[in-house]
Amino acid sequence: MAKAAERVERVMVVARKDWRDSVNGRFLLFQFSDKEGPLKGVFWQPTEEIDREVQVNDVVRIKGEMKPYQGAYELHVASIVKLNEKEYDVTQFVPVSSEKTDDVFGELLGIVSSVDNEHIRKLLEGIFADEEFKRSFLKAPAARVWHHSYIGGLAQHVRDMTLLALRAAEVYREVDRDLLIAGVLVHDLGKVQELEVTNRIDYSDSGRLLGHIMLGVEFLDERMRAIPGFPAELKLKLKHMILSHHGTLEHGSPIVPMTIEAMLLHYIDNLDAQARGTLQALDKETGRFGKWTEYVKLLDRFIYRGDAAREAESKKGM
Amino acid sequence: MAKAAERVERVMVVARKDWRDSVNGRFLLFQFSDKEGPLKGVFWQPTEEIDREVQVNDVVRIKGEMKPYQGAYELHVASIVKLNEKEYDVTQFVPVSSEKTDDVFGELLGIVSSVDNEHIRKLLEGIFADEEFKRSFLKAPAARVWHHSYIGGLAQHVRDMTLLALRAAEVYREVDRDLLIAGVLVHDLGKVQELEVTNRIDYSDSGRLLGHIMLGVEFLDERMRAIPGFPAELKLKLKHMILSHHGTLEHGSPIVPMTIEAMLLHYIDNLDAQARGTLQALDKETGRFGKWTEYVKLLDRFIYRGDAAREAESKKGM
Amino acid sequence: MAKAAERVERVMVVARKDWRDSVNGRFLLFQFSDKEGPLKGVFWQPTEEIDREVQVNDVVRIKGEMKPYQGAYELHVASIVKLNEKEYDVTQFVPVSSEKTDDVFGELLGIVSSVDNEHIRKLLEGIFADEEFKRSFLKAPAARVWHHSYIGGLAQHVRDMTLLALRAAEVYREVDRDLLIAGVLVHDLGKVQELEVTNRIDYSDSGRLLGHIMLGVEFLDERMRAIPGFPAELKLKLKHMILSHHGTLEHGSPIVPMTIEAMLLHYIDNLDAQARGTLQALDKETGRFGKWTEYVKLLDRFIYRGDAAREAESKKGM
Amino acid sequence: MAKAAERVERVMVVARKDWRDSVNGRFLLFQFSDKEGPLKGVFWQPTEEIDREVQVNDVVRIKGEMKPYQGAYELHVASIVKLNEKEYDVTQFVPVSSEKTDDVFGELLGIVSSVDNEHIRKLLEGIFADEEFKRSFLKAPAARVWHHSYIGGLAQHVRDMTLLALRAAEVYREVDRDLLIAGVLVHDLGKVQELEVTNRIDYSDSGRLLGHIMLGVEFLDERMRAIPGFPAELKLKLKHMILSHHGTLEHGSPIVPMTIEAMLLHYIDNLDAQARGTLQALDKETGRFGKWTEYVKLLDRFIYRGDAAREAESKKGM
Amino acid sequence: MAKAAERVERVMVVARKDWRDSVNGRFLLFQFSDKEGPLKGVFWQPTEEIDREVQVNDVVRIKGEMKPYQGAYELHVASIVKLNEKEYDVTQFVPVSSEKTDDVFGELLGIVSSVDNEHIRKLLEGIFADEEFKRSFLKAPAARVWHHSYIGGLAQHVRDMTLLALRAAEVYREVDRDLLIAGVLVHDLGKVQELEVTNRIDYSDSGRLLGHIMLGVEFLDERMRAIPGFPAELKLKLKHMILSHHGTLEHGSPIVPMTIEAMLLHYIDNLDAQARGTLQALDKETGRFGKWTEYVKLLDRFIYRGDAAREAESKKGM
Amino acid sequence: MAKAAERVERVMVVARKDWRDSVNGRFLLFQFSDKEGPLKGVFWQPTEEIDREVQVNDVVRIKGEMKPYQGAYELHVASIVKLNEKEYDVTQFVPVSSEKTDDVFGELLGIVSSVDNEHIRKLLEGIFADEEFKRSFLKAPAARVWHHSYIGGLAQHVRDMTLLALRAAEVYREVDRDLLIAGVLVHDLGKVQELEVTNRIDYSDSGRLLGHIMLGVEFLDERMRAIPGFPAELKLKLKHMILSHHGTLEHGSPIVPMTIEAMLLHYIDNLDAQARGTLQALDKETGRFGKWTEYVKLLDRFIYRGDAAREAESKKGM
Repeated sequence: MAKAAERVERVMVVARKDWRDSVNGRFLLFQFSDKEGPLKGVFWQPTEEIDREVQVNDVVRIKGEMKPYQGAYELHVASIVKLNEKEYDVTQFVPVSSEKTDDVFGELLGIVSSVDNEHIRKLLEGIFADEEFKRSFLKAPAARVWHHSYIGGLAQHVRDMTLLALRAAEVYREVDRDLLIAGVLVHDLGKVQELEVTNRIDYSDSGRLLGHIMLGVEFLDERMRAIPGFPAELKLKLKHMILSHHGTLEHGSPIVPMTIEAMLLHYIDNLDAQARGTLQALDKETGRFGKWTEYVKLLDRFIYRGDAAREAESKKGM
Repeated sequence: MAKAAERVERVMVVARKDWRDSVNGRFLLFQFSDKEGPLKGVFWQPTEEIDREVQVNDVVRIKGEMKPYQGAYELHVASIVKLNEKEYDVTQFVPVSSEKTDDVFGELLGIVSSVDNEHIRKLLEGIFADEEFKRSFLKAPAARVWHHSYIGGLAQHVRDMTLLALRAAEVYREVDRDLLIAGVLVHDLGKVQELEVTNRIDYSDSGRLLGHIMLGVEFLDERMRAIPGFPAELKLKLKHMILSHHGTLEHGSPIVPMTIEAMLLHYIDNLDAQARGTLQALDKETGRFGKWTEYVKLLDRFIYRGDAAREAESKKGM
Repeated sequence: MAKAAERVERVMVVARKDWRDSVNGRFLLFQFSDKEGPLKGVFWQPTEEIDREVQVNDVVRIKGEMKPYQGAYELHVASIVKLNEKEYDVTQFVPVSSEKTDDVFGELLGIVSSVDNEHIRKLLEGIFADEEFKRSFLKAPAARVWHHSYIGGLAQHVRDMTLLALRAAEVYREVDRDLLIAGVLVHDLGKVQELEVTNRIDYSDSGRLLGHIMLGVEFLDERMRAIPGFPAELKLKLKHMILSHHGTLEHGSPIVPMTIEAMLLHYIDNLDAQARGTLQALDKETGRFGKWTEYVKLLDRFIYRGDAAREAESKKGM
Repeated sequence: MAKAAERVERVMVVARKDWRDSVNGRFLLFQFSDKEGPLKGVFWQPTEEIDREVQVNDVVRIKGEMKPYQGAYELHVASIVKLNEKEYDVTQFVPVSSEKTDDVFGELLGIVSSVDNEHIRKLLEGIFADEEFKRSFLKAPAARVWHHSYIGGLAQHVRDMTLLALRAAEVYREVDRDLLIAGVLVHDLGKVQELEVTNRIDYSDSGRLLGHIMLGVEFLDERMRAIPGFPAELKLKLKHMILSHHGTLEHGSPIVPMTIEAMLLHYIDNLDAQARGTLQALDKETGRFGKWTEYVKLLDRFIYRGDAAREAESKKGM
Repeated sequence: MAKAAERVERVMVVARKDWRDSVNGRFLLFQFSDKEGPLKGVFWQPTEEIDREVQVNDVVRIKGEMKPYQGAYELHVASIVKLNEKEYDVTQFVPVSSEKTDDVFGELLGIVSSVDNEHIRKLLEGIFADEEFKRSFLKAPAARVWHHSYIGGLAQHVRDMTLLALRAAEVYREVDRDLLIAGVLVHDLGKVQELEVTNRIDYSDSGRLLGHIMLGVEFLDERMRAIPGFPAELKLKLKHMILSHHGTLEHGSPIVPMTIEAMLLHYIDNLDAQARGTLQALDKETGRFGKWTEYVKLLDRFIYRGDAAREAESKKGM
Repeated sequence: MAKAAERVERVMVVARKDWRDSVNGRFLLFQFSDKEGPLKGVFWQPTEEIDREVQVNDVVRIKGEMKPYQGAYELHVASIVKLNEKEYDVTQFVPVSSEKTDDVFGELLGIVSSVDNEHIRKLLEGIFADEEFKRSFLKAPAARVWHHSYIGGLAQHVRDMTLLALRAAEVYREVDRDLLIAGVLVHDLGKVQELEVTNRIDYSDSGRLLGHIMLGVEFLDERMRAIPGFPAELKLKLKHMILSHHGTLEHGSPIVPMTIEAMLLHYIDNLDAQARGTLQALDKETGRFGKWTEYVKLLDRFIYRGDAAREAESKKGM
């Protein structure tokens, strides 16, 4: 927390911007925010130009001085400048995976190279060897909120799913292992386009209007058409897996899973999403609830952390 | 109904085929069907070859003689030959629209030529001028069962929807008339691939695994990419209209309508499907129910035809 | 926005009224509102009488002076007087249709006179020629919130539906055009009683306890009984149309549509309600969202206005 | 079961009627039915006139002779005559309450006379003193299938509900006892018109198109208007109770219960319907299931009768 | 409301506790609450120890002085001490039934002694004669919010249900009266463990993780096992009643009711819960709505109190 | 298929039993069945005693002779004797797992011994070392129909789930591996009591009235109470896992999963049930559908086996 009368220079997001009347004329009242929380700012000499240029959700560099007001502090803004995407560090605003994304990517490449089916391997190698794809893939989260909602989340989600899929392919030996692995690796690629990571994670226009399922099929289709002699049957099965991976119509798949591999893909996806989302909820600093997490809206429940005291007693007898 | 001892030669569909034991050895018991209804057939000298070749749902040419059995007649099959798609007339098995499909197509061409937006008109002209497209489009039904479930049904569905859409564009003047018309004309083109019309209407493999929404977007996307300079914004809006035209996720759209034109497309589609389906139910020969249709499963209700007697009385006072 | 120290006299609605303690004794803290927004007011010399007389949701004439407080302004109330319905202009608080209601009514009369069926025409003429009916009908909105939620909205809703219904009667020639038109014209008459327009649109007691469907059937029944020899069959069909026009039980119809005219009425009603509601959402001043409307709660989605920049680019190639 | 070669004369319902071909020409194959079960009949000399006159669901007097056929018996019809409603006894086909309906009606009159509120008592006395009403009320079932689906069922349903309602009025002393009793007595009167009891229980046309809730409100409204000075508030509350007694929109009430009396009416109605329906299911002769009833479709479950052996053991220790 | 400069000593709950910065250093800003409402408190000399000891939801004894701030009053805290459960009176924070719980318990004992079946009577006597059980049973509410959400609520809920059940056993004579009574008396005993009454009603850990249905079956099972020779059939039926008393899976019963007594238990439970909940909503002081209660969230509706004016007019004619 | 005039002696189940009239008096018409399918039987000299003794669903030893009738064969029963459970081999009627159950059990013992937590290991060892438990556990299916619906199915279901759970415990390192394994091993133990395997798989009385979730908790609770010093916290968590493993209330869990281990248990259970059910559907002999399975009712879909021809073509390019 900044001290009184301290001069500050910070890069923050504009959360609100309102014109207010004071006895000395109109001024702009700001609410800024970054990971540390919100900050109130007043700008006593606003110009029309600044009002036009600086909008809610913009990232700005603000300079000014902290002053006390009604027992709290607020920032008296001296200057405010809008920054473009290259002028600030996105990780200042959006959380980042706790794993090194390069390591995760390496694991994925290992799995790709383990694929026997030449058509599938060629397809996957084509995708994962593309440097531009890699950059945007590793930046992507797996969801706007809920599970893996951080930079690198998509890669982690896919890696964890492959580990589960490999085990499933051992347990259910009738399954086409390579097809299942391919389905896992490509099922969410539409999210790279659906979600934009600026100073927050949000939907792109095409993300909202078409959705990641459609965008993913389009992406994959283009890749498959680029490979001469890519088998029609395989095309059909892979597209079906992307289309159906949400499992039911109510959850946004236009088609339900109708192959054993598509069924497995859906259940593995669901398992990983729910497990990771629950772990993220458990991971949040224990607030006033202690043994329980706060209410988790997307699960419509509290999650039990356990009772440390009772737990300790449990261990005693061992 | 064929008479006793009559020699018959008919082209029918194999509805069932079962091996049965008789005191004289094994024989094949058939159930054949065509528009006139079912026909029982017995084949006393079956061969392995015929059993392999003739399968349920095949169209066959059967020759034989009608003989009485337990008070009814059955066909004693002398010869049975499987026919391929070109050897029989599909309209012998599948109902056909009561309107001339060429007239309907002409109306659609007229609407296409009324489009002002050059990009849209070029797109539509490209599609509708294609002779192969025309052939398969005019053969397609709009659904397997329920509404417009006959040859030419898709064209009729689309034509009726354009009439409603033109009125809607007058009533709601803020609407982009050309975009709405385009949406109506292309929204169900995926059905040409989704449904196969052989001796019955059924789903194709890709129809079941991908669905007409996905197939429609793919079809349109290919057409739009083939037009140099086709605007990105228009592409986005048209794809969104196809994707969302079922209105809700539960009904198979992966995305809900989010433009006014997509909203209208959905409601007009729904109106025409339900109205035509209801009219088809009313149109069936009145059986033992008279004032009411038989129970209409897809609507989960009976439809009231009206009481002719009371109706007559109504007219008297006029 | 009123200036400091300005003397004001305004007619506003009481949005909140609370007793507060100050170091100088108890006072009344008001929140007033009109179309321009909220206004804070303090009344330093409250009387028991005024507290009893002036209640939340009342319309009042307030006089007083604007004074600065904590950087903003508030109204120091000098006098406050409750007004009855005739002492203020309802359109000061409730939005009004952008169309002239007399023109809309004229269009409706034209449609009434086009009806061939004498029983139906007599019924409709009886209703629409009644001056008292006309007055309350033209004041009525079509809904409390969502679509046509303004004075004159009901008439506009019915007029737009007749335009769609006339087209539907052309497309589906088996339909009884006069019956369909009659259904459209009377289906929502219960809303005249269900909704009260005072300084806001709200439900009447009978509106909440009986609902507009029941009220509408009662209204119509009385009219039909007043016509000697009105046919029983027609009575039955018209009542059925009102009862079933919400389409499903979940949406408040005790009976689902079971005639083709009742089916069409429902789908046309739905189409117009959703289309107009969406257009109203699009019509709101574009706030911080630009290409998208704000979140539309009743549709559970954002509506896409389009991207002006991309749109412009689309037009270039033409 | 009739014996072979026995001459029979019976009054039965026509369940099916089909033309069949035999080596001796066309004949009519009938399926008749009454409480004793189905009976097959053949009519070797059918006339066009008889085919026109005798329809499925008609009650007919048939004379003929029982003859063996394929190891079973069938009736060779000599004559068949259609009967009108007065020529046969409805109780031959439709089950009848096990209680004397006059006794039940007497109990209801006793409850009516216990009502203190003069307006309510006058209303109820007017209804229940009407001889024509009494006749049709006592004949009515409370439902087509499920609970109280027999002649006299409606009266029994209402009587049982009043007993529960009187107790509820003691337990919840804030409740308006007379209003609750009135609601119970009139809530289902629309069923008298909704259901027709001929040789079976079925919906009337107005029953299907308007439903018993609407018909009940109309019936009551007419009665209330006939009483000079019947209070508006009471009218509103009673109509609301009929309208809302199904409890939710999904179950066919256009309005949910919004008074404590309407709430109680709904829950008491539900309790009695489910309890009686369950008792009827338990009452059916124990078939092959013994401890359990057969599957009860309307409850989607089996009902447990109990294990007589285990039960006996339970009693031993006492 | 405390006056300015008044010295106060109160026992209240800590609703919020936040560190704030002021120009004089950090302080603790409290929100306290009791039945009279919220109270703001500032603690200028906070210690680490107090911050650790006093948590949100704790009950504390606070001493201090009321001082004016921005036109309102706040408590300047001089000392704050956390109290344990025995140091304060729970009824200061949680509402209490308006009936004497000893009287209610007496009524329940009377019903227990009326049971004929010796096994059942022995079971119930064993439970209700237990002093520790009695104490916790009489303290328990029947729900956290909604119906009977006050101390003594569970006992009242059970007593009212027995009155209804006794009537039901008269109306449906096939029912096992003693079994039904037993079911009513034990169905919610799991709530004694599920809900904790401290300074508020909340779920216990086992209440959340196991639920009152499971806890109730466990409690009963232990009691039944303690009775030598308790019949297996009766055990099965009683456990089934507890398990199924919510009526459907969606409402938390793992099994639906499959005996007539379990069916009745469910419907009687539902009736009493909804009736009492509605009466509680009606009982709240009439606020700005007058004829209607405020919106009742758990019923998703307003409840109509009636129109006193219209009501009065109703009574006139009598 | 038995030949004509062949003398047969078979052990079969009675599927139907009906009295019929013939010209030679009453006889019993049977429908028998075993794995080979149905068989019609006639018993010309039935006795009252046999009618009483032999019931539908009984297993009987029948002797008799095959005779032709209407072109088919039927069994003329000479003697029929009811068998008790020990007199026939259950595997003659109920399918058996394709895996050796002893091998599967061995794998489970290996997993038990890998558990570190002493309390958990002691609990599991106690259960799995019990010979009587082993016998009934290895006989149990995992469901009446759908997945693992064969003898040994439960053991296989649990074994496959442990393999998936071990992988999940590697992927989600925060998870308590021993607790998760324990949950998997015990979650369905209630099915041993819920399902009875006689000549078919069916529910026991307690299975229907209490359900396997309740029965499972009871079973486990007894085991845990038998271990001195078994920790309360662990008890709570394990019971919670059994109670919540169906994931949602609608699927029969009275409580939703609220620990990460309970969440994982549910998703792994679901994955294995759906995967195995789908594989069983795929495994059925390909009938007339070829590329597709027959309609799978419990999944409400067809499952795609793939197109062998297209598949072959896919492999060519490799």
